[in-house]
Amino acid sequence: MQALLLVAHGSRRDASNAEVFKLAEVIANAPALPFSCVRAAFLELAEPSIPAGIHQCVAAGATEVRVLPYFLNTGRHVAEDIPHEVNQARAELPDVDVRLLPHIGAGDAMIELLIKKATESAQ
Amino acid sequence: MQALLLVAHGSRRDASNAEVFKLAEVIANAPALPFSCVRAAFLELAEPSIPAGIHQCVAAGATEVRVLPYFLNTGRHVAEDIPHEVNQARAELPDVDVRLLPHIGAGDAMIELLIKKATESAQ
Repeated sequence: MQALLLVAHGSRRDASNAEVFKLAEVIANAPALPFSCVRAAFLELAEPSIPAGIHQCVAAGATEVRVLPYFLNTGRHVAEDIPHEVNQARAELPDVDVRLLPHIGAGDAMIELLIKKATESAQ
Repeated sequence: MQALLLVAHGSRRDASNAEVFKLAEVIANAPALPFSCVRAAFLELAEPSIPAGIHQCVAAGATEVRVLPYFLNTGRHVAEDIPHEVNQARAELPDVDVRLLPHIGAGDAMIELLIKKATESAQ
């Protein structure tokens, strides 16, 4: 049973964190999604933390957790802080396959999205 | 003549800021793009600032500037700080049509990207 954990930075604004929970909910309801549960977690400033989010997935029955960083650039958070948090959870859950995915800013999909957004605006 | 200004947060890591300049370059080379120039700017921690980036677009010949926030959530930066910076540039450039676009996290395109990234990872 595979779970998806969407990891955002976290904000002092509750409305911003609520957007992330809402995103996780929308993803969870997508058709033909290969995850039995989708949860959200935050690097800082909001709860649950990344390890707590991974534990939530396991409590929901997951034996595999895919951690998707909702981050744009390879800053310190993506390069160091998130891997550190994921490793902490791995040490606590040796029987769970926890895999950290590339952040969403990596790859061509984001470039396509930017071009689409910019082009729409020019019309 | 219309310019696109991609606005990122800015990082203490040069490699992260370089990613944003690279993104602007890739977008600039996209086929059939309705912008005569594409530039990058940063809210903080890196140069150019947003007003400086808008001035760069104008120096390159732009009479219209579309400012696209490369931000995911409606945090304080998107809700307050970026509009403040854009308004500062507007006051300095009354003859230029400067328009602030919705941040890239807004709308269905980002949800589609997230579902695509997550689904690919499960395979």
